[in-house]
Amino acid sequence: MRLGIAQINPHVGHLDRNLAVILARIDEAHRKGCDLVVFPELSLCGYLPCDLLWRAGFLERMEEALQKIVRASKGIGVIAGGVSSKIHREGANLSDPSSLLDGAATTLFNAAFLIEDGKLLGQEVKLLLPSFDVYSEKRYFTSGPGAQVFDFRGTRLGINICEDFWVDDGPTDTQASLGAEWVINISASPFFAGKAGIRRRLAAKRAKENGITFIYVNCVGGQDDIVYDGGSFIVSPEGDLLFQAPFFTEGLFVLDLEGLAPVPPPREETIPLIHRAILLGIHDYVRKSGFSHVIVGLSGGVDSALVAALAVEALGPDAVTCVFLPSEITSQESREDALEVARRLSIELLEIPIEGVHAAYRNVLPHPPTGLTEENLQARTRGVLLMTLANERNALVLAPGNKSEIAVGYNTLYGDTVGALAPIADLYKTQVYKLAAAMGDRIPKRVVKKAPTAELRPGQRDEDDLPPYSVLDALLVELIEKNTSREELIAHGFPKETVKDVLTRYYQSEYKRRQLPPGIKVSPKAFGIGRRMPITHAYRG
Amino acid sequence: MRLGIAQINPHVGHLDRNLAVILARIDEAHRKGCDLVVFPELSLCGYLPCDLLWRAGFLERMEEALQKIVRASKGIGVIAGGVSSKIHREGANLSDPSSLLDGAATTLFNAAFLIEDGKLLGQEVKLLLPSFDVYSEKRYFTSGPGAQVFDFRGTRLGINICEDFWVDDGPTDTQASLGAEWVINISASPFFAGKAGIRRRLAAKRAKENGITFIYVNCVGGQDDIVYDGGSFIVSPEGDLLFQAPFFTEGLFVLDLEGLAPVPPPREETIPLIHRAILLGIHDYVRKSGFSHVIVGLSGGVDSALVAALAVEALGPDAVTCVFLPSEITSQESREDALEVARRLSIELLEIPIEGVHAAYRNVLPHPPTGLTEENLQARTRGVLLMTLANERNALVLAPGNKSEIAVGYNTLYGDTVGALAPIADLYKTQVYKLAAAMGDRIPKRVVKKAPTAELRPGQRDEDDLPPYSVLDALLVELIEKNTSREELIAHGFPKETVKDVLTRYYQSEYKRRQLPPGIKVSPKAFGIGRRMPITHAYRG
Repeated sequence: MRLGIAQINPHVGHLDRNLAVILARIDEAHRKGCDLVVFPELSLCGYLPCDLLWRAGFLERMEEALQKIVRASKGIGVIAGGVSSKIHREGANLSDPSSLLDGAATTLFNAAFLIEDGKLLGQEVKLLLPSFDVYSEKRYFTSGPGAQVFDFRGTRLGINICEDFWVDDGPTDTQASLGAEWVINISASPFFAGKAGIRRRLAAKRAKENGITFIYVNCVGGQDDIVYDGGSFIVSPEGDLLFQAPFFTEGLFVLDLEGLAPVPPPREETIPLIHRAILLGIHDYVRKSGFSHVIVGLSGGVDSALVAALAVEALGPDAVTCVFLPSEITSQESREDALEVARRLSIELLEIPIEGVHAAYRNVLPHPPTGLTEENLQARTRGVLLMTLANERNALVLAPGNKSEIAVGYNTLYGDTVGALAPIADLYKTQVYKLAAAMGDRIPKRVVKKAPTAELRPGQRDEDDLPPYSVLDALLVELIEKNTSREELIAHGFPKETVKDVLTRYYQSEYKRRQLPPGIKVSPKAFGIGRRMPITHAYRG
Repeated sequence: MRLGIAQINPHVGHLDRNLAVILARIDEAHRKGCDLVVFPELSLCGYLPCDLLWRAGFLERMEEALQKIVRASKGIGVIAGGVSSKIHREGANLSDPSSLLDGAATTLFNAAFLIEDGKLLGQEVKLLLPSFDVYSEKRYFTSGPGAQVFDFRGTRLGINICEDFWVDDGPTDTQASLGAEWVINISASPFFAGKAGIRRRLAAKRAKENGITFIYVNCVGGQDDIVYDGGSFIVSPEGDLLFQAPFFTEGLFVLDLEGLAPVPPPREETIPLIHRAILLGIHDYVRKSGFSHVIVGLSGGVDSALVAALAVEALGPDAVTCVFLPSEITSQESREDALEVARRLSIELLEIPIEGVHAAYRNVLPHPPTGLTEENLQARTRGVLLMTLANERNALVLAPGNKSEIAVGYNTLYGDTVGALAPIADLYKTQVYKLAAAMGDRIPKRVVKKAPTAELRPGQRDEDDLPPYSVLDALLVELIEKNTSREELIAHGFPKETVKDVLTRYYQSEYKRRQLPPGIKVSPKAFGIGRRMPITHAYRG
């Protein structure tokens, strides 16, 4: 049996393009002699169309695309992911309360279609619908009626979808008990550092416990806040890794299942993986938005230098314009460092001093602003200039915010937060340093080594306002990733005053986080769509 | 049987304050001779704490509050809403994949607790968990095991929770078949215009079909994007309305159930209800955020005049500062109108001309901006000034955006969109006119009657850029509230070019909507948390 793993990069809602990609890969797989070619979860529509699923006509168009795939499957088997539906009634009106339930006229299923030789042989429906973190599948989908198996060219197949394999005693076990020899899981599994190993260990457990060959097919690509990392793989009934597809790369991988020998698991180091995830996230956000150019404000500090370097690596130096926006407070060192970053990255650098605008604001205000108000004004002046340049050049601004400052609100809403995308928003400051160091010569050593400063008042240092980042980040990991309470943080040894200060800042900056651009998720718990918080709440524990 | 309906205004996460409010109402009900006092859904924690439910310690604190209510229930019955839980295990680590599921260690239930005389008699768990529009209960809660009944002081009671009564053949019917004489539904039901009548009709249907007295207890208050409108009521087994509590007002309503006679249903007119909803939304957003002062930029146009008038009505004239920010393009008429609005509202009006700042921006940019870039620059200059004043005065900015302009992106991100709250974000422009007219003398007639303009270029009129609002709004209602497709819009008679233009603008402005401040929901489908859209998607149908 020759298998094709089609690790593709669907674009959400781009039904025509996704169909074209799928048809091209089917054709390629057929030419390469595959018996079966497998596409990821929701490959027809991309993961996840969200409320677009409720747009009139969306399902019909997906159905048309599916029919085209069925017709194109001459001489080959295909597994493709899409949405299947039962339409119960049409229309909606206020005299019928149930019509107020979004999508109530329709039951939707997250389905895998098994197709061969011009026929739809069957479909398997996702049983376990994740509705935590970034997932909201119970908003849209209904669980399948139960796991089944298919006989395909002499092999008994079980097919399941993403979450279906994450929970013990799930569909894989049922399918094995029904005689499945292979279980194929199609996924759209968001990246975070460390997840690939978890997937493989889990697959090995399922394979060994059930004596099956486990085939995992993931998609690849950036979609707003999320990066799908690919890394499809096959595990033997003994739990050995038989194949590992590359990460963050599209491809059709053709394998003769009978002839596979164990391969060593890939090395997976956190920072290099995060690096590649962010590159793909930037690239796909910009391209899938229909843009080609980005603008980054360079301060001379490490965050903006890193964002610029990542943008250049993702999009090429011609696609990136940097802007240095000095004030009277800006040091000579910051200027030199910004110039040096631009030089090393071979990118255009504009210099736009903000004193004139800043003075004009001060002149016209009833009282000259002071303190934090004044600092915010500087940051917002820069934000306006970056947005103006972006409008003029039909470019997107990339925001330099990191997870540590977003967590404690150490940023200016409509100032340094402006942008279409915040590439390093899910990196703690201590991770920013590590990734910046890993960029090698592209970022000057001095930029990585100097004390961090927002440079909004003379002599300002982040650590005058905040705990040292080594302490802050350790505390934030507990708070954000583990939901550790105030009392537990103190019990873990964080100084009581530090805990109090950080929690106050954390809770008070919820309104800012609601208005941030999307970040690129690289951790198990990122700010953004995977973390839902009320704004005006009063909980402080 | 004497019943107390405690239509309270919980504050999300403010467990101590909510407990104090509940204890005070129990005491009041006891003094007034009530047998039973009923509080709304999740009254202990407010609706909805969202991911705060997963914070370590949150459930324990709620449990402590519940125990205090139990101890305070001497001589009286209490029904209160809160979260009950089963804790399966503690801790989380990356070697256990299921620990990555938020809240996986705990099963949470949305529960109604029945308490009497120092004892917890039992709990009923919500069976139907809404997960559409603004709801995400399946993210947090597990369905109850089924409907039950309780015998309380000689009456058989069924208790169910919000959504439980919205679906046919639900818990109310089961409880009636188990002999319930009264069915009490505790809710946290978000307002939209027309919903109160739907609730009453539905309750009358349930009551008549089952021969039960139906008691509906809703909370009241603004919570971020949502307003709970109260309006608790009782319906007889004949389907007659026996009691109607006021809308948008807290209170304890004491009723002798045996002696109630039918009352006429209240008049419910759309614009007055929306008006009151927005007032409560503004008031509670500002107060629950710990602020007391707001800032509104007055342009001389109807949107900002309406927001200012609503803010004054919600918070008082001393709590509102208006700012007129003229440019060289601003007309004498706009100036007069802004001054007149401030005069009629008796509020402070600052005037800050933007030409100087604007010229400073133009001077420092590599090319003087033109066209839309230049218009955005003006709007952003105003945004920065408003935010600077807000920072200085520890105030919140209210944004003037309406639903029509948000739908088509006829606004400037970080410009006129800045603010903590957008009070009229869920009003189409045609509704803005109606509400402005309903404000009477507070808004000058000329402001309501003049042609709308963003006044960002000489002679600009909205209708030079957009279809007339009468057409645009009719189209947007179809598009947003009914999910009507491109083809159907054309079939409905909207001009093909208009449909094309509006859909292009609508789809292209998704990135702006992601970064808007919360609006106040007054329609069945508002932008914001009840509408989840990918940003970089390519669907255009």
